[in-house]
Amino acid sequence: MSGIDKYELLSDLAKRRGFFWPSFEIYGGVSGYLDLGPLGAKLKRYIEEKWLNTFVYQHGFAAISTPVITPEKVFIASGHVEHFKDLMVSCLQCKRHFKADFAITEAMPGKTDMALEAMSASQIDAFIEENHVRCPECGGQLSKAEYSLTMFKTNIGPYGDTVGYGRPEAAQGIFVDFKRVFDASREKLPLGIAQVGTVMRNEISPRQGPIRLREFTIMEMELFFDPEESKCEYLERVKDMELPFLLASERERKGSKITRLSVDAALKGKVVLSEWAAYFMALSVKFVESLGVPGEKQRFEEKLPAERSHYSSQTFDHQIWLDRWGWVEIAGHAYRTDFDLAAHIKHSGADLSIFKPYDAPIEKKGTVIVPIDSLLGPLLREKAKGVIEKLRSSDPSEVKAAFARSGFFEVEGFKILPTQVRFEERMIRETGRRVVPHVVEPSFGAERVTYSVLEYAYTRNKDRVVLKLPPELAPTKVMIFPLMAKDGLPEIALTIQRALMAKGVETEYDEAGTIGRRYARADEIGVPLSITVDYQTKNDGTVTIRDRDTWQQVRREWKDLPGLTESFLRGDTKFQELGTIIQATYD
Amino acid sequence: MSGIDKYELLSDLAKRRGFFWPSFEIYGGVSGYLDLGPLGAKLKRYIEEKWLNTFVYQHGFAAISTPVITPEKVFIASGHVEHFKDLMVSCLQCKRHFKADFAITEAMPGKTDMALEAMSASQIDAFIEENHVRCPECGGQLSKAEYSLTMFKTNIGPYGDTVGYGRPEAAQGIFVDFKRVFDASREKLPLGIAQVGTVMRNEISPRQGPIRLREFTIMEMELFFDPEESKCEYLERVKDMELPFLLASERERKGSKITRLSVDAALKGKVVLSEWAAYFMALSVKFVESLGVPGEKQRFEEKLPAERSHYSSQTFDHQIWLDRWGWVEIAGHAYRTDFDLAAHIKHSGADLSIFKPYDAPIEKKGTVIVPIDSLLGPLLREKAKGVIEKLRSSDPSEVKAAFARSGFFEVEGFKILPTQVRFEERMIRETGRRVVPHVVEPSFGAERVTYSVLEYAYTRNKDRVVLKLPPELAPTKVMIFPLMAKDGLPEIALTIQRALMAKGVETEYDEAGTIGRRYARADEIGVPLSITVDYQTKNDGTVTIRDRDTWQQVRREWKDLPGLTESFLRGDTKFQELGTIIQATYD
Repeated sequence: MSGIDKYELLSDLAKRRGFFWPSFEIYGGVSGYLDLGPLGAKLKRYIEEKWLNTFVYQHGFAAISTPVITPEKVFIASGHVEHFKDLMVSCLQCKRHFKADFAITEAMPGKTDMALEAMSASQIDAFIEENHVRCPECGGQLSKAEYSLTMFKTNIGPYGDTVGYGRPEAAQGIFVDFKRVFDASREKLPLGIAQVGTVMRNEISPRQGPIRLREFTIMEMELFFDPEESKCEYLERVKDMELPFLLASERERKGSKITRLSVDAALKGKVVLSEWAAYFMALSVKFVESLGVPGEKQRFEEKLPAERSHYSSQTFDHQIWLDRWGWVEIAGHAYRTDFDLAAHIKHSGADLSIFKPYDAPIEKKGTVIVPIDSLLGPLLREKAKGVIEKLRSSDPSEVKAAFARSGFFEVEGFKILPTQVRFEERMIRETGRRVVPHVVEPSFGAERVTYSVLEYAYTRNKDRVVLKLPPELAPTKVMIFPLMAKDGLPEIALTIQRALMAKGVETEYDEAGTIGRRYARADEIGVPLSITVDYQTKNDGTVTIRDRDTWQQVRREWKDLPGLTESFLRGDTKFQELGTIIQATYD
Repeated sequence: MSGIDKYELLSDLAKRRGFFWPSFEIYGGVSGYLDLGPLGAKLKRYIEEKWLNTFVYQHGFAAISTPVITPEKVFIASGHVEHFKDLMVSCLQCKRHFKADFAITEAMPGKTDMALEAMSASQIDAFIEENHVRCPECGGQLSKAEYSLTMFKTNIGPYGDTVGYGRPEAAQGIFVDFKRVFDASREKLPLGIAQVGTVMRNEISPRQGPIRLREFTIMEMELFFDPEESKCEYLERVKDMELPFLLASERERKGSKITRLSVDAALKGKVVLSEWAAYFMALSVKFVESLGVPGEKQRFEEKLPAERSHYSSQTFDHQIWLDRWGWVEIAGHAYRTDFDLAAHIKHSGADLSIFKPYDAPIEKKGTVIVPIDSLLGPLLREKAKGVIEKLRSSDPSEVKAAFARSGFFEVEGFKILPTQVRFEERMIRETGRRVVPHVVEPSFGAERVTYSVLEYAYTRNKDRVVLKLPPELAPTKVMIFPLMAKDGLPEIALTIQRALMAKGVETEYDEAGTIGRRYARADEIGVPLSITVDYQTKNDGTVTIRDRDTWQQVRREWKDLPGLTESFLRGDTKFQELGTIIQATYD
């Protein structure tokens, strides 16, 4: 496209027509923030709804909503306070800050960012020195690399009693709520708990427009399953589907060859470790395809161990090709195992395991703790009952270890001494046992998806931009034009609009300018159908219907349109079936 | 309800069934945060959609989306950094913090909070001393009152180069975007720009569950209109509607008498200052009524000048009655005039006015600035063109004032001297002029609305809770039960479920427990219809359909149900019309 990339073309259109633009423009802007205009906000909303239906509701799973600002202890438990950091270098001359791998990639475009992501601070420093890497903006000398926490920090309440962070993922809100949702959902696994909501990442110096934002809407699901019964009941639907992999082994050899494997083969070959992960990856391809991104522009990049988040045992980035940035992550598929639930069990003391009853109770020999009530009772008084109960249900081997280590075992702040309990070997009757669920996670960024949908919809026909959005995603479904703003034509047009709106079809009425200009605008904002009311309409009730994608026109009585339009937008009726094809009168 | 209020009853139900619960429970919770479970999140989403349709889309207005974290300069301009504060007192003994008016109201339950909100810090101190107000928690002595900023503060980027705040309202994102949206919307007033999104308020010590949250979803619209053409085109629809006012004058006499005025009379009597505000207030009543809150449980409290936000010339709180808290604000209707746009024009230098063309150009005498090109050109070089243009379009009286004040007038960093320009009196041809739009704002908190809907839906029939949610808001529309989980009944039930889901009707399938317990659960989560498949279904294809609200049952062939159910949920078909009334077999 003659030197100008699609991002540039689209940004111009997006500003003019109201899809998106940089935030806080009148104050000079702040990088990493994006506003969605009237059309962009609607498009994003439709994408969110489609995602919810595809990933959540069609499986009978749940979607919840939890806060953005989250108290520090949650992110200490989850490992984010320790791990959610990026290496940063600063220019000693112009004082700008850069993500370390970005600074290097800018200076040495040949390098892939793969090895860099895995480097430690001292390795980065050495690399910068060896390769004489300088500031990508001014050529100045760069500082040593240091870690920058990429969460927004704030205080909850006055005086900063409680430190909080803007959540960088919605997942932790789901993990801490797992037990509540599990109980309310009739205690059955597998259970998907999703969330569509705002997340924040305090990126060091984001400079990729809608692709790297400091604030965005995540569409994220944690699928909880029993690791001992890990079959995915929906696998049959996708098992023959071929997925394109860029495998870690290939990446380690600096190659970029795609390996195509059926879902079945990927599981059998242990390329993908979990059936649920493989199912969601296949669903992810279908979802992204239905948004207008063809299969051949998609791939799954397997992350190297050093590139993975601290909680993940296996991660595939679902990538798509974008004109300016090349392969870009549109979704992440992580196998989080029991990492997060186990961490919250440890830090909160809450029991987030599930109870698995045996078919029949079993008896087996085991050690039990017997608190000596006559000693503990008088000591603990009104607390005795609770502490003794907790003590009794503690793991005997842990209690023994604590005694050996520190001479006591702590329960609710009380130090229990070895003399205050007995250990007995007994036959224990077990009716079941407790298991901590495993988790796989598909996770999408809604703004990035929205941008990608627009880029793939962006086409040109002659000198005109035609935004070929999938009809179900189009912010406006039907434009309604009176040929002239007089002679009763507007009244008929408005009647048609009301009839369509009553069917829930989103319409826009426009009487300004030539019909050609109105069609051009309809094409530019991706309206699938345009209806024109002209003088003939007054005689026979027929109107012209124009197809955005082919510019074909048909004639039909407008009374038939509300039902037909719905059917067309659902994909059940073809455009040619909407009426009698006519020579395009206005263009 | 026997000492237990509806909030308590509902909270229990909400936790068990998955509507809402306090956030971060496993870590002991943090006050002012609420999680929405699977049912609550859906209910809230439906409320948001209904709000968007009612306030925004039916008028052809726009909804946009802007960031939560907002750079400080925006909130300096808007006045929030200066004004968005609450007076706080702390207990010198137990160290707890309290909103000053809360501490006083707790200690002296007789007092209304009206006068308190208007008090200064020293007035509060005097009041506390005179009335011997002590800590509401421990009875300790209270500190002097001081202001606490109720915005969350954070840093954007590493090293805190840019201070940012969590937005306490979505309005500012709309104001800074006004021009972009206006341009994309074909430059016409009136223009409504709405936003449904997360806002944050760092309340001092919130303790009212879902009613006072530190983070919630705002549903807010800024309606921009030309103050010289302030007619509301929709007024006709509501002008005879009676609105219940608790007027400021009545409140000043400590009264609580309601004045009922038609919209028309309220406008004629200048009780409400703007037609648009009056229209939205009427719409607000209809909206809240459609959510299940009867008109007699609603009123508009006119705020006293000292109670109003700094940006508002007139505010009405739309209040509803809640069992625990009495009259509670469910929406705010503020007349913000041109306060915000004018503030952003001043602080950003951007032109946020609109151009109003005259019918015909007019000629009038006026002063113009004539930059002396021969002097400025060589001085400014490549910048000359831009600076001279800007100088030419500056306001002559402002330039003169600057000369008088400081001896120069600054344009893009250049100091223009009086010797470098001439002032001339000329006939000026004006084709129109610029006007800063006025704004009225209806604003709702989605979580509070969600809670209120649940409270008003909460009823009891015999010993059973029946949640009489308006069908369109019910998270699950239809429950589908096989009488027994065997003999082919589940298969038929699942077929019916698929048929309903294909129509977009949200269903849930349940085969566990007695039919009575399943009906009870359906009632408790507000499912309008339950369908039971029994042995007769295998013979004649009929099923039992049960009505949540009357517990009546009808019999009908299930093949008719998808269409009929849709119609029932829309309110077009009555329950009795769904089939033949039968004696309730299962209950």
